[in-house]
Amino acid sequence: MSPGSETSPTVAVVGGGQLARMLAEPAAAMGIPLRLLAEAPGMSANQVIPDHLVGDYTDLPTLREVVAGARVITFDHEHVPNDHLHALAADGIAVRPGPAALVHAQDKLVMRAAVDRLGIPQPRHREVSSVDDVADFGFPCVLKTARGGYDGKGVWFVGTPDECGPAFAVAAQTGVRILAEERIDFDRELSALVARSPSGQAAAYPVVQSTQRDGICAEVVAPAPGLDPAHAAQAQELALRIARDLDVTGILAVELFETADGVLVNELAMRPHNTGHWTQDGAVTSQFENHLRAVLDLPLGSPLARAPWTVMVNILGGTGSLYDGYPHALARDPRLRVHLYGKEPRPGRKVGHVNAYGDDLQDCLERARHAAAWFAGDLGDESE
Amino acid sequence: MSPGSETSPTVAVVGGGQLARMLAEPAAAMGIPLRLLAEAPGMSANQVIPDHLVGDYTDLPTLREVVAGARVITFDHEHVPNDHLHALAADGIAVRPGPAALVHAQDKLVMRAAVDRLGIPQPRHREVSSVDDVADFGFPCVLKTARGGYDGKGVWFVGTPDECGPAFAVAAQTGVRILAEERIDFDRELSALVARSPSGQAAAYPVVQSTQRDGICAEVVAPAPGLDPAHAAQAQELALRIARDLDVTGILAVELFETADGVLVNELAMRPHNTGHWTQDGAVTSQFENHLRAVLDLPLGSPLARAPWTVMVNILGGTGSLYDGYPHALARDPRLRVHLYGKEPRPGRKVGHVNAYGDDLQDCLERARHAAAWFAGDLGDESE
Repeated sequence: MSPGSETSPTVAVVGGGQLARMLAEPAAAMGIPLRLLAEAPGMSANQVIPDHLVGDYTDLPTLREVVAGARVITFDHEHVPNDHLHALAADGIAVRPGPAALVHAQDKLVMRAAVDRLGIPQPRHREVSSVDDVADFGFPCVLKTARGGYDGKGVWFVGTPDECGPAFAVAAQTGVRILAEERIDFDRELSALVARSPSGQAAAYPVVQSTQRDGICAEVVAPAPGLDPAHAAQAQELALRIARDLDVTGILAVELFETADGVLVNELAMRPHNTGHWTQDGAVTSQFENHLRAVLDLPLGSPLARAPWTVMVNILGGTGSLYDGYPHALARDPRLRVHLYGKEPRPGRKVGHVNAYGDDLQDCLERARHAAAWFAGDLGDESE
Repeated sequence: MSPGSETSPTVAVVGGGQLARMLAEPAAAMGIPLRLLAEAPGMSANQVIPDHLVGDYTDLPTLREVVAGARVITFDHEHVPNDHLHALAADGIAVRPGPAALVHAQDKLVMRAAVDRLGIPQPRHREVSSVDDVADFGFPCVLKTARGGYDGKGVWFVGTPDECGPAFAVAAQTGVRILAEERIDFDRELSALVARSPSGQAAAYPVVQSTQRDGICAEVVAPAPGLDPAHAAQAQELALRIARDLDVTGILAVELFETADGVLVNELAMRPHNTGHWTQDGAVTSQFENHLRAVLDLPLGSPLARAPWTVMVNILGGTGSLYDGYPHALARDPRLRVHLYGKEPRPGRKVGHVNAYGDDLQDCLERARHAAAWFAGDLGDESE
């Protein structure tokens, strides 16, 4: 093995997506070896992590193979079976976040119960197993699968009994449980990101505004413009409290609804999160570096912003080679920061993002939106 | 191969050292595949670049193997034989920097002649082939091998004929030519870094102050404190002029002596340079990203500083595991930026560097010097 790996702790990472890929940048900088378990050959993270194997993360022996000799195991996604994580922990492996924490990012019913127990505001909710249950809960509402949903999948906005069919069809087919949630008339969505280490140190990033399109994060503004300081403090405090109470290690993202009365918890994620990609260019320490530091129980880096404003816009879709977008995008904006994931563009697929930071919010918005639309092929010849 | 490599241009990089390793970070971010030719297994860059082969960069077939299918070839060091680079160029490969430029970073006699031709100030110099030639040139002076020297190797400060022995012994043994240079009574050393693309676009970084210790770069302050604006302009202008005149592509570092009368050229390097490591955390676009952009003929990124001051201090030496330095260093300074190269520490060996940026120069100096000394094991128990 390499000289570095003899003296530095290896971090095992499950999942070959862009989050694992973006962990590789601070890992290289800090001299921390990564070992990757990817779902398939040629994935985003495989391209930049030499020590990788391709295998099935639902197979316990494969998980044991990837953690052999590693200091800790962490994740690009929430889909590793919780029982396997308990088995690894029983083997003496440091699993971070641990299975008892991670289940709250895997199962929305478990998460809702924990947030209720903590007395933290969230939408009214209950488990439903029939259309009658939903009618009893009250239309209109939102139906969600308790497990397995992401990026708008596994979510149905229902106003009538007829509209409940697809959700219960999925339930019947897969055995997944269904949650009904009150539809919140929110002003906007926010995200509170914190990093927390096994020693209990925590760092809270500035609260950001996120804009979803078709259930997918489209744009993030850091910090959230015009945010009531009381709401900002409430968001950071509840994120820190959830992280501590659930013993989260690594990054915790708390997606929130903001209303006139304050903030309500929408979702939890326990890994670097799309609403934290702005930190790569806009914060002293990126979420990816702080995730690595946290899972290794190293002191956390400052989460403070380096610029008054940072705007992140996802590149969704695109055709042909994204690389061909560079000449125009980089010539137009010498301060633009581009992140491409090495993924083949397909309609609606997250293939990269751009960050624009500066003193003027409107300027940052214009630069980031233009560049993301350009890479996605949504501008054509009208780009200038 | 990976999806990314089908649609993005591969950059072939010769040399497995830390400069190649640090190219991998922006390459991953930008979705640009790298293919590495390393001198040995387990080197610094091999650890973070999956697509690497181990081989001899003085062997033309090996060089041809690494460039097959790549868009361009570039370098971590200046030691690839110039004839081989001409051969690759004759094959139709984009060699950046090209051999006609690179020879000025390989041969000090060629470099001195070019700088004279451009009318740019530099130390008085001449080729010497005997002690009599040196006496004729005048003692005291500096003797340098025309080729192969680096980090203080191949340089002799001589005051008497007897002291010339080692230099001519090397010349007799290796056939290398020897250059005598006037010893400059400089106030300090500066470095002017520029990036230049094949299209002729160029970007000049702020001029920095560098401090050498035993011929090795120890510390860099960006920008050079109290620099006379006329000297700064002179340094940037001459670096841009050299880059254009020699048709440099990629990063050009011009190491300079500053005297009361202005600046004089000391050395040239045509690759990311130790005096540019501050740009990773202190500039809008790092020298590594701009090197990649330049060799791919993409528009260059802004070279401007992001903070009033950035201080870079090299980690030289150290014992045991550098990783063990993290708990203290990161806890003491949450804004510290650490870069470790995955190299086994040995006395005096460059194994990493730290960057500290901020509004107060003295604070940045103290933070960076403390952290570098801590990692190198030069503080012991007095660290706090």
